[in-house]
Amino acid sequence: MEHLRIQTNPPYEIRIDSGSMDRWGEAVASVARGRRCALITDSAVGPLYAQRVERSLQGAGFAVCTYTIPAGERSKNITTYGDILEFLAEHRLTRTDCIAALGGGVVGDLAGFAAATYLRGVDYVQLPTTLLAQVDSSVGGKTAVDLVHGKNLCGAFYQPRLVLMDPEVLFTLPDAVFSDGMAEVIKYGCIWDRSFFDFLCSHPSRADLMPHIETVLRTCCAIKGQVVEEDEHDHGLRMILNFGHTIGHAYEKLGNYTTYTHGQAVAAGMSDALQIGFALGVSGGSDEGYTAFMDLLKAFRLPTHIHIPREDEQAWRTVTETVGLDKKGDGDDITMIFLERIGKAVPVKMKKDAVLAHLAAVHGRA
Amino acid sequence: MEHLRIQTNPPYEIRIDSGSMDRWGEAVASVARGRRCALITDSAVGPLYAQRVERSLQGAGFAVCTYTIPAGERSKNITTYGDILEFLAEHRLTRTDCIAALGGGVVGDLAGFAAATYLRGVDYVQLPTTLLAQVDSSVGGKTAVDLVHGKNLCGAFYQPRLVLMDPEVLFTLPDAVFSDGMAEVIKYGCIWDRSFFDFLCSHPSRADLMPHIETVLRTCCAIKGQVVEEDEHDHGLRMILNFGHTIGHAYEKLGNYTTYTHGQAVAAGMSDALQIGFALGVSGGSDEGYTAFMDLLKAFRLPTHIHIPREDEQAWRTVTETVGLDKKGDGDDITMIFLERIGKAVPVKMKKDAVLAHLAAVHGRA
Repeated sequence: MEHLRIQTNPPYEIRIDSGSMDRWGEAVASVARGRRCALITDSAVGPLYAQRVERSLQGAGFAVCTYTIPAGERSKNITTYGDILEFLAEHRLTRTDCIAALGGGVVGDLAGFAAATYLRGVDYVQLPTTLLAQVDSSVGGKTAVDLVHGKNLCGAFYQPRLVLMDPEVLFTLPDAVFSDGMAEVIKYGCIWDRSFFDFLCSHPSRADLMPHIETVLRTCCAIKGQVVEEDEHDHGLRMILNFGHTIGHAYEKLGNYTTYTHGQAVAAGMSDALQIGFALGVSGGSDEGYTAFMDLLKAFRLPTHIHIPREDEQAWRTVTETVGLDKKGDGDDITMIFLERIGKAVPVKMKKDAVLAHLAAVHGRA
Repeated sequence: MEHLRIQTNPPYEIRIDSGSMDRWGEAVASVARGRRCALITDSAVGPLYAQRVERSLQGAGFAVCTYTIPAGERSKNITTYGDILEFLAEHRLTRTDCIAALGGGVVGDLAGFAAATYLRGVDYVQLPTTLLAQVDSSVGGKTAVDLVHGKNLCGAFYQPRLVLMDPEVLFTLPDAVFSDGMAEVIKYGCIWDRSFFDFLCSHPSRADLMPHIETVLRTCCAIKGQVVEEDEHDHGLRMILNFGHTIGHAYEKLGNYTTYTHGQAVAAGMSDALQIGFALGVSGGSDEGYTAFMDLLKAFRLPTHIHIPREDEQAWRTVTETVGLDKKGDGDDITMIFLERIGKAVPVKMKKDAVLAHLAAVHGRA
């Protein structure tokens, strides 16, 4: 059992506890003001866990209504967001009631944004069921939906009241979905904690990691928590969490959010950023960590590069336009995250054109 | 010329200045960080003023892109909101660029909500062109869209960087739209300032008021500013601004946001609330102020009652359901605003059933 307290405004707790799912109701009741709870889940997670969670919430005295969205990133749009809002209104949720997000990052981001904006803000709790959501999207209060023009272009900073994780849910994850989350786990080692990176290198498989999974989750959440506490609204330090993401989001868009998972896209994006960092001379020292990094991605079957055929100008344009539209952009500039070394990220403000020229070089288009 | 500073987080200025429209660009430039501005307007206001405002913004160095929504409350929905977001993304607005809302409350609420959520928040300025928007919706940072289930059920608290008013725009308003705003003007006298109420009673027409319009605007904005400074996020005092609104919103919904304007619905809602306040014994003293209040509504052709035919059960259900869903509701309770006397509002937490029983009595349904 691992409990972490995140000192945002308002502060909240992350509780990592194997086998805890059937006691989640009590935990939610300990932070809730009202006695109604809207459970938002998706078509993949709902059939596995929604009933257990509903029962636990009901056992703790909540009247529960459940809304199930279709699983997948394609649901993370304005239309589904509007449907959730109408569902909440239809069930007459009031300002003191709460929303619970049961699922992966899509459910958490959408339900969190609905919570941030329904009646201009109601309480919500995150119940993340994927590794990716547990180490990343459920912590930090970034909520979002995608626009046609790009990922997470709309949303709000809105902290949950509580984050509850039962690592046992990870046993039901397909390998590919576990790997998806590993991209973010590896990211934390790269940007913040060399010893955690080394730990991952010495546990290069799902089977190696699972006996230590509470520690892995706690380490990742603690790193994210520290960064978020220092920079809740993404004006400075928090940008380092974006390592691999500016380019990664462009690959996700390229694959229409279906060809590549978030983790695959970020893995390739981190690899590209590392190479650009070397080319710029920002990443110093030997290539040793770089090789270990590439080996780690491969060990979890994550891509180290996403190939774009030279003749496919349309695809290339999608990538460059999406990079240009990144939220870290500011007029003609964009803040890229590089690694000074493994364990230490550094933001660098660059001209968008320069980033795209370097990215072209990585893709052999220079 | 009247300048007010509102001490919210962040603070901002309201500038009321006749003939200032052609200098708005410089004013926006004085608070803007970037050099791009998305002007959001509607099909009624755009043809009158968009070109002048665009020219002024361009003269101050902004690259301007303009998006025009269809005029009317029906536009204040999730779909139009999504369209605005895609427009911003298409024009590659970045986090340091800004949005300007040129129009009435619908434009201000929608553009404000888009600003609050696009890239999780970009700067915006309010350029209100109706009396209603000038005295109410442009000040205070409440942004919103309507849901199918009710008005303003989704939104965010998000303060503008600047509010600019040119009272000369009021000369082009139809009488009915001017009256629409007068409901809110009268509200400020009722809830906060007896001497302002008396001033209005002695200037009971548009022609009487216009020579004093800068003072009227400043008085209303100063009252709203004081209330908002004390309670930015609507946990307490701010609720008094809701006088007439819980019932008024139900009338708006009843008329499908077309039969009654916001001002008409609020006028009838204030009148109902006054009667309920008397019935409860919350409103004390003589009926003198009450008569003056009714005369004032009539002077501006605002309704003192909205009739619902006794046999129209569907209409009555719409009203009671909408009252029950009010954002001020909390489980079975709802906070209603009554007048202790003209010039002094008081919030009273009541059972929803009790409110509806009193409302039924007002409608002769007891």
